[in-house]
Amino acid sequence: MELAFGKSGGLIPDVLMLGFMNDVALAETRKTGEVVFFSRSRNKLWKKGETSGHVLKVRELRIDCDADTILARVEAVGPGVCHEGYRSCFFRVLDERGEARVTERKTFAPERVYGSEGKQ
Amino acid sequence: MELAFGKSGGLIPDVLMLGFMNDVALAETRKTGEVVFFSRSRNKLWKKGETSGHVLKVRELRIDCDADTILARVEAVGPGVCHEGYRSCFFRVLDERGEARVTERKTFAPERVYGSEGKQ
Repeated sequence: MELAFGKSGGLIPDVLMLGFMNDVALAETRKTGEVVFFSRSRNKLWKKGETSGHVLKVRELRIDCDADTILARVEAVGPGVCHEGYRSCFFRVLDERGEARVTERKTFAPERVYGSEGKQ
Repeated sequence: MELAFGKSGGLIPDVLMLGFMNDVALAETRKTGEVVFFSRSRNKLWKKGETSGHVLKVRELRIDCDADTILARVEAVGPGVCHEGYRSCFFRVLDERGEARVTERKTFAPERVYGSEGKQ
């Protein structure tokens, strides 16, 4: 299949990842134009790409009807957003038996990008 | 702008809504092939479209790297998923002043679909 990259300015819409923001993360995102999350596990702001350089440049922030979810339309800098080395974090399909099956190919070697520091 | 519907089998990828599932909701979704959420506000299962008929037919369920988020790729039956009458719940852009500005047109009259029963 040939993807119609030309039709959408080089972008193919896809869902890359889900993260959480608090009010400070949203303010930083708006101020810098690059996505900043709030890491619940580390209990602090988490600038996506601060280690890897794989930042998310904000094209548009959308708000849902309940005003409790933000959809960030972004340009993803680099070969992928996932700390496991994939373009999108949703690289597995839940199959009929309930098993998560990898359907995508890695786009980069995460150990070279992240070292032992873990997820950024 | 003419959208390239023909290129993707009639589907234009977009993010329609965000909801929550518990294990029962996921099991029901897998069993029925239509999306079932868990409503946190009503504390019960919520079959999307049970009032409106605007069900979400599951094409594929994807799991993220942390196995804590599901991406449901769906065929959305009907003119829209949003209880406010829009195709997607993300019908507003957050503008530079921090105001939520409606950028989409309604695709149906929600009061005719939902009556006074509220969101389904």
